[in-house]
Formats: sequence, structure tokens, C-alpha cells
Amino acid sequence: MKTINIDLGDRSYPIYVGEQLISHPTILHDHIHTDHVVIVTNTTVAPLYLDTVTKALGDDKSILPIILPDGEQYKNTETLNTIYEALLKNKCDREVMLIALGGGVIGDITGFAAASFMRGVKFIQMPTTLLSQVDSSVGGKTGINHALGKNMIGAFYQPQCVIADVDVLKTLPKRELSAGLAEVIKYGLIRDAAFFAWLENAMPALINKDSSALIEAVIRSCENKADVVAQDEFESSKGIRATLNLGHTFGHAIEHAMGYGNWLHGEAVAVGMVMAAFLSKELGWLKPDEFDRTKQLIADANLPINPPDIPVDQFMGLMQSDKKSQQGRIHLILQKTIGDAILTSDYAEAALHKTLQQKSF
Amino acid sequence: MKTINIDLGDRSYPIYVGEQLISHPTILHDHIHTDHVVIVTNTTVAPLYLDTVTKALGDDKSILPIILPDGEQYKNTETLNTIYEALLKNKCDREVMLIALGGGVIGDITGFAAASFMRGVKFIQMPTTLLSQVDSSVGGKTGINHALGKNMIGAFYQPQCVIADVDVLKTLPKRELSAGLAEVIKYGLIRDAAFFAWLENAMPALINKDSSALIEAVIRSCENKADVVAQDEFESSKGIRATLNLGHTFGHAIEHAMGYGNWLHGEAVAVGMVMAAFLSKELGWLKPDEFDRTKQLIADANLPINPPDIPVDQFMGLMQSDKKSQQGRIHLILQKTIGDAILTSDYAEAALHKTLQQKSF
Repeated sequence: MKTINIDLGDRSYPIYVGEQLISHPTILHDHIHTDHVVIVTNTTVAPLYLDTVTKALGDDKSILPIILPDGEQYKNTETLNTIYEALLKNKCDREVMLIALGGGVIGDITGFAAASFMRGVKFIQMPTTLLSQVDSSVGGKTGINHALGKNMIGAFYQPQCVIADVDVLKTLPKRELSAGLAEVIKYGLIRDAAFFAWLENAMPALINKDSSALIEAVIRSCENKADVVAQDEFESSKGIRATLNLGHTFGHAIEHAMGYGNWLHGEAVAVGMVMAAFLSKELGWLKPDEFDRTKQLIADANLPINPPDIPVDQFMGLMQSDKKSQQGRIHLILQKTIGDAILTSDYAEAALHKTLQQKSF
Repeated sequence: MKTINIDLGDRSYPIYVGEQLISHPTILHDHIHTDHVVIVTNTTVAPLYLDTVTKALGDDKSILPIILPDGEQYKNTETLNTIYEALLKNKCDREVMLIALGGGVIGDITGFAAASFMRGVKFIQMPTTLLSQVDSSVGGKTGINHALGKNMIGAFYQPQCVIADVDVLKTLPKRELSAGLAEVIKYGLIRDAAFFAWLENAMPALINKDSSALIEAVIRSCENKADVVAQDEFESSKGIRATLNLGHTFGHAIEHAMGYGNWLHGEAVAVGMVMAAFLSKELGWLKPDEFDRTKQLIADANLPINPPDIPVDQFMGLMQSDKKSQQGRIHLILQKTIGDAILTSDYAEAALHKTLQQKSF
């Protein structure tokens, strides 16, 4: 087991990465100093891992499972209220400890329930997807969707610890593993050229769910994200955390155009990163061989590299309505080189149009 | 104008206390560095002060008023969603500044909306009741009620500043002024004997809404509360912030028994403080003349000193179900002397029973 310490002053916490962690009582006992534990999970994850976590917690605790329906469409006020009601009906007080056992949706909604129940109770993240292990479990972003916008309601709220057990990825569908790898590749592209080079060699092992490769990928991803988050915990200054959104403005437009849920977030981001790389190459920033390496690594992760058929005008409109657009001019994360990305609106509009017109990269 | 600085590290903020503050552009301009301002108020306060604040903000800002129905029964998820919807429909982003213009309910719900909209935006408190000026505007407690419990959903979230203008108290009904004075007296009782003595002289002026007396009362109250809150911002350790609840366990039982809203919170707390003082006297802690002075000051504030007719068993049951009860044994804030109160369960049960049996103090 390896430990990454997220340094946020009195809100600091460790991320544990390794094998056989969710079945191991020691980590839980180190962090849980209460008799009342609530495990929030969903109908997909509960049959797989709820018993394991319950056993690891031991017999001396009162354990309440809350099993939510699975899916982004349930990340809303109604489901949040399901958690509040269960906590109140079971007479939970401020000493309760919540455990988020699931992917990003479970982590986000449980984190916000913890942030807002009785003005804040403790919680632990146990991410069960690669995406949530490398992305949503670092940074303290919690929340739910509103009918008028995604992630509009929430809080920055840090967990007591994150337990990232790569064993649970063995049951993850291949398509979701690849979607998680998109975010892993992103860290190499935006700030860690050595990690990118490592990924070029390790991708076959990662696709085959080799544990030591997965552990290394999760650790390097979390370390990179933690470095960025530590500089700007509350996302107050423009730009510092923005590079984490490489490929996301293109990607959100694809997700939106295709109907949310049809393309996985990671798949849309993968194509978005290829598009950002192409545009960066057009601007003379990224060298042709760097663009080819980027495209190849994404393809090796079994991710799409070409966008679906979206008319250029529609693509532009969707990108402009993305929250990162300001005064109509679209701010994009672009690549200076592999391992260095910046937030900029300093690009030729023609190059963006050419990028949106490409059917195949 | 006087300024009290609340010292909470990077969450520190000033409280401005004085006359003609809400009509004065300077304070607002010092704290508002955005073009998008949303004023959250209610149907009672809007006709009185919304125009004044709007004018003070100036012509160069986009100002959106959100006027909520008036009353504790609206401090819920539905009203909170009214705020979210208005913010989203008006395309507010994380740069928006919310202003809470109203009493405790407006402050609590607006503060929580600010804490949770897009994971946190800035807000300013403009409390328009004495109670909210001396109590809910200091300490960062924000939130809403849940069908299963009061203030169950919320956050600790600090404003950019609090603007406590005693001029707005001129339109406050006398009964509500007195209810606010209960909390003012509380600060004298729990930790400031000199302030208590000052109140004994100043009470006629306060009842007559003399501005300089009100300013002094608000300042001393906020200073006292700020001292307590600075020691324990997140109410994590038992006891430090608990003394702020003097009279509240008795008071909540009275409010509950009489139906919420029939007795004002401050009225119930007033009787609760007399009951706590009586019990403290029975234990030999508070001297008889100190008990008499306590009772007299509360009566001078036009507050009730005797409880409504509640059977002892019901009173006990309600007190036990209050959240400060642990393992069935009721923890109470009791007086060692005027100016010194402690959280304790170290009292004779018979003395509590005698207290609950008193029809008249």
C-alpha cells in the first residue's frame, strides 16, 4: 500500500492506494472514531462490495447501508433527500461517519450530504471506478445536479481519507476502465511528460488490469491532481485548476450533442484531447510527432479519437455555452508540448474551425 | 460607525454597527467587486428597505431581487430551490454576490444558498432584526429546516461582512425587539458581568430604541459571541460554544409544547434563562440577589419570566429529546454567577424537578 498526502492545512487527508484495501480493517479503524457508520452505495456496487466493507468495519459498530439507484440521473435533490431522511430516521447525529462506496456520482452526492448534514459530518471516499480514483476523489468537489445545470449545487468539502483499492477495478466494465484512462492520460499531457512516456509502455498492462500498473497509474494521477489542487483549493483564481479541464470543452459539447450518457464522459474527453492536440499542432505549438503520440496513446487505451458527426455551427454553439466561455470568446486548454498545457483564448479562429471540421484525425 | 473584526483566519470578516449604514454606498462598494448582485429578502422587509439598498448599490450594477415569503415555515428545501432557480435563470455564475436583507430566516437560507450555489459564492449579511444582529449574523451557521428536524441541513459559511444598521430596528415590532433583547441579556449572563450591569441601567433606553444604546448593545453582544466562536468555529468540541445555548433547552421545550411560532424564540429563551437561574440558585451556585437581578432585567426587557402551563413529565420528555441530551441525562447550561455559565449534567435531579414545577418565579 502506498500513501499520498493531500496537503490542505487543517483539511489535509491521505489517499491510500493498493490491493486488498477495502477488506482490510486497519485503515478504517484508524479513521473511524465513532460507533455510527453509514455506507452510501448503489444497486450495482452493493452486491459486489457492501458485505466486504461491512465485515472490515467489524461487529462493534452500528452500520446503516443506504443503497441508491445507479446513474447520473439520480444525482439530484430527491436522492440527496433520501440520504438526509435515512440519517434522520436512524437518529444519526454529528458524530456519524459516512462512507461513499461507488463511483463519481456516489462520491459527489455522499460528499455533499456529509458537507451539509448538520452543517458538516465526516466522510470517507472508497472510489470503485478508475475515473473516481484518479479524478473525483481528489479536490474536494462535491455536489448534485440541478434541473437547470450540472453540478450547480455543492460544496468544496474534503474527506477524512480516500481508499483507492485497485482490486475493485477487476469488476469494472472495460469501457469504463478506458474512460478512466482518458483522465489518466490527461495528467501526462498537461503536466507530466515522464508519466506520459511511462503510460506509452504501460498501456497494455493497464488495459489488462495489471495491479501494479494500475497502482502506479492511480498514484501518479492523484499526485498530479493533488499538486494542482493544493495551489487553488477553492478554484478561486482563473487558470490554475483550469488545465485539469483539458479536452473538456470539446468533450462537453460532444456529450451534450449526443445526449448525456450515450458517450461516456471519458470517451468524450478523449476525443476532446485529440482535438485540443490537433489545434495545438495547427498553431505550431505541438510538434507533429507529439500529436501522433497523443493520438496513439488514446487509441491504445481503447478510446475513440474521432468525434461523432456534429455540424460545425452546432459544435461552436455548444462550446460557447460551456461555462468556461467568457464574453463569447472560447477559452481553451491547449498544449504547448506534451507535459505542458495552458488556458488561453490566444489562438486563430480559423484553426479552431479547421479542427471542428475534421472528421478523422 | 464601529467595526468589530471577527478573527477566523482566511475566513475573517468585519461587522459594521451604526446608523444610516444600509443607505451608505461606501461599505457596499468596499466589499462588492462584481457587477452581479442578488438581494434576497422577504415580503415584510422588501417594502421597507429594498429600495434603499438598491439605491446604495448604485446604477452600474445588475441587481436581482429575490423576495421570499416571510416566516420560519418557509426555511426549507423548496424556498432554497427558489433561490437556486432564480440564480440559474438569471445566468449568475460564481462571481455573483448575494445580500441577505432580513432577519434570521433570510440570513440562514441565503447563507446556505451562498455556501452551496456552484460550491460557494460570496455573500453579505444585512440583518434587520435585533435577534439576527446579535445572534445569527455571527458564527457562520447557515441552513434550512428538514421535515424531520430544525436546522438539520446547512453549512458553516462566513459572510464577507455584516452590516448591522440600528436604524432598521425602528420599524421592528416591540415584541420582536424584546425577543432580541433576550439574547443580548444572555451574553451578560454567560460571560460578561459588566455588560449585564450596563444593561440594568440601559434597559429603558433600549426599550425606547435609543440609537446609541442599541449600538452599544449590538457591539457588546457581537464581541462576546465572536470571542466564543473564534475558539471553536465548527462547534467541534463539546462545551465551548454550548454556553451560547443558555436557556435554550428549557426554551425549545416551551416552543415545542406551545406550537412553534406562538411563543417567539427569544420569549421562550427568556423564561428558559429564568429557569436555569432558578435551578442554579437551588444548587447553591447563583446567589438569591443574583437570581432576582436576572429575573428583573428580563422583566424590564418586557419579556415573560414564567413558563406556560406544561405538565412536568411532558416538559422533561421534550427536554430529553432536545439535541443537547445525551444518554438520557440532560446537559444544561447553568450559572455559576452572573457572567459565568457552564455546560453540566452535574446537578441534583430533584432540583430540576422543582424548577419544572414552579408556576411563578
